[in-house]
Amino acid sequence: MNPTELRVFCPATIANLSCGFDVLGLALEGVGDYMTLRLSEQPGVRITRISGGSLPLEAERNVAGVAAQALLRVSGYGGGVEMEIEKHILPGSGIGSSAASAAGAVWGLNTLLGNPFTLTELTGFAASGEALASGAPHADNVAPALFGGITLIRSYTPLDIARVHCPPLLHAVVLHPQIELKTSDSRSLLKKTITLQQGIRQWGNVGGLITGLFTEDYDLISRSLEDGIVEPVRSLLIPGFGKLKEAALQAGALGFGISGSGPSVFALTRGAQPARQVGEALKEAYGPLGIPFNLYVSAVSPQGVRPAETGQNDQIA
Amino acid sequence: MNPTELRVFCPATIANLSCGFDVLGLALEGVGDYMTLRLSEQPGVRITRISGGSLPLEAERNVAGVAAQALLRVSGYGGGVEMEIEKHILPGSGIGSSAASAAGAVWGLNTLLGNPFTLTELTGFAASGEALASGAPHADNVAPALFGGITLIRSYTPLDIARVHCPPLLHAVVLHPQIELKTSDSRSLLKKTITLQQGIRQWGNVGGLITGLFTEDYDLISRSLEDGIVEPVRSLLIPGFGKLKEAALQAGALGFGISGSGPSVFALTRGAQPARQVGEALKEAYGPLGIPFNLYVSAVSPQGVRPAETGQNDQIA
Repeated sequence: MNPTELRVFCPATIANLSCGFDVLGLALEGVGDYMTLRLSEQPGVRITRISGGSLPLEAERNVAGVAAQALLRVSGYGGGVEMEIEKHILPGSGIGSSAASAAGAVWGLNTLLGNPFTLTELTGFAASGEALASGAPHADNVAPALFGGITLIRSYTPLDIARVHCPPLLHAVVLHPQIELKTSDSRSLLKKTITLQQGIRQWGNVGGLITGLFTEDYDLISRSLEDGIVEPVRSLLIPGFGKLKEAALQAGALGFGISGSGPSVFALTRGAQPARQVGEALKEAYGPLGIPFNLYVSAVSPQGVRPAETGQNDQIA
Repeated sequence: MNPTELRVFCPATIANLSCGFDVLGLALEGVGDYMTLRLSEQPGVRITRISGGSLPLEAERNVAGVAAQALLRVSGYGGGVEMEIEKHILPGSGIGSSAASAAGAVWGLNTLLGNPFTLTELTGFAASGEALASGAPHADNVAPALFGGITLIRSYTPLDIARVHCPPLLHAVVLHPQIELKTSDSRSLLKKTITLQQGIRQWGNVGGLITGLFTEDYDLISRSLEDGIVEPVRSLLIPGFGKLKEAALQAGALGFGISGSGPSVFALTRGAQPARQVGEALKEAYGPLGIPFNLYVSAVSPQGVRPAETGQNDQIA
């Protein structure tokens, strides 16, 4: 017998990783939401409670609801599901708040139904929830939220996802400035075309980053964390971006960029101690701007959504 | 004491590998040129003999000469070098004929001088020879010709080259239709801009190919051997391209594309026997067109330019 109720931890995620726009992402260890899911005989999806954020309870207006509906529709299951969501990742932060909810909903529901679907299929359901948040069915946050570690979306049509090796020392630092920046606005800033030369440089860096991850060559990882296409445009929306980048790199970060569509920014480091140092440098650099912010220092989580007892929240500022 | 004379084997190479335009390449095991290099007290580069192709003997008009001059200029060596070149790779074939000569010249000269330069530095010298052939200092053939195996050029400025893991079963089949197609013409066909969506798909595939190579996931390699940017344009210049691609894939190739800027085409396979089958299928498909062609079936060479006794030429048709 499968359990009929389950509490899950849904990790926050960093999408893009500089050069890997729309294709790369990683799961954070200590930052995430919780969800409780309960099978019910009543068909459909009901969100009974949301704490920690003012999000719609109506299933069809909530990313977790839409994702769960997409799964239920093809599952053949005659009943429905009730969900409670405990948000810890602030909506609009750029570390996969909606993706965590969508991923948690489909992973939890799939587990309660006896695992009829693969992780790639779950990613597809969750991406249809994400479409509600960003206007397009993006999967670069839901893929790492479901698979854990570092993921590559090779293709969206058809959806094709691969795990990339994560060197054990890799850590992430995230600074979330509390300003509002909508994913859909942030996307509309991007030009629809790039030069072939920009493209060559970008896929050279994607290749370099993935090669560096597999060979655990932190210098190559560092050199590859470069984005000449999206960062120059989107960083203009993030007050203090240049100052933060300089501070992170001077404090020893391997690289620094925008997390997803922002406004959060991230740094990667070789080790936990360098991550704390970079975190301190970012705090010091950002303090004078007077913009409230949250700071997270985290390992990369080898697991995606999982039963709740192994989750935790390590916000340090 | 270093020897003062050396005979080297210079492997043919496949650049681009479908999705990896200008950044990926691999070295072939059994196809290549030979060069003999001899230090001399007379400063400068002299090409004393070229067999197998009508190429200029004047150093400044020959890619091997220009590459060797580039190295000599910064080496501090007071003398010069004499070179004999035995071409087996037809110039203009698209499997790195000029790159093999440039790579052989700098590798051989570096060895005779006691290895003062790194492989990346040698790639830079050889690329300056390549500029003579293609109008731009490309390194996607010289990098695999020097490093061996599968190489990634993460960046051209500065030059940054990484080795990518090559699964042991990977084999290549190359069909060279004997038509003339100049690299510089083939480049001028390309549009200077691409859509962001094309870029995302391309760097997703580059990421997928490299992930598949490191994890030895031949299915992922196969799915990633896709090029929506260059192949649709350049394939129009290669008579029978569509027919050959269909035949290769039906015969079990992992993927099929244009080798470098063509006119050679290549297929990758999982194993030597499938490579021979694909070779037979390509012969059968191309015969009726009445265009003379050469066909090569080869493992990936783990080594780049090397002392000559280990080289060989395996042309089978």
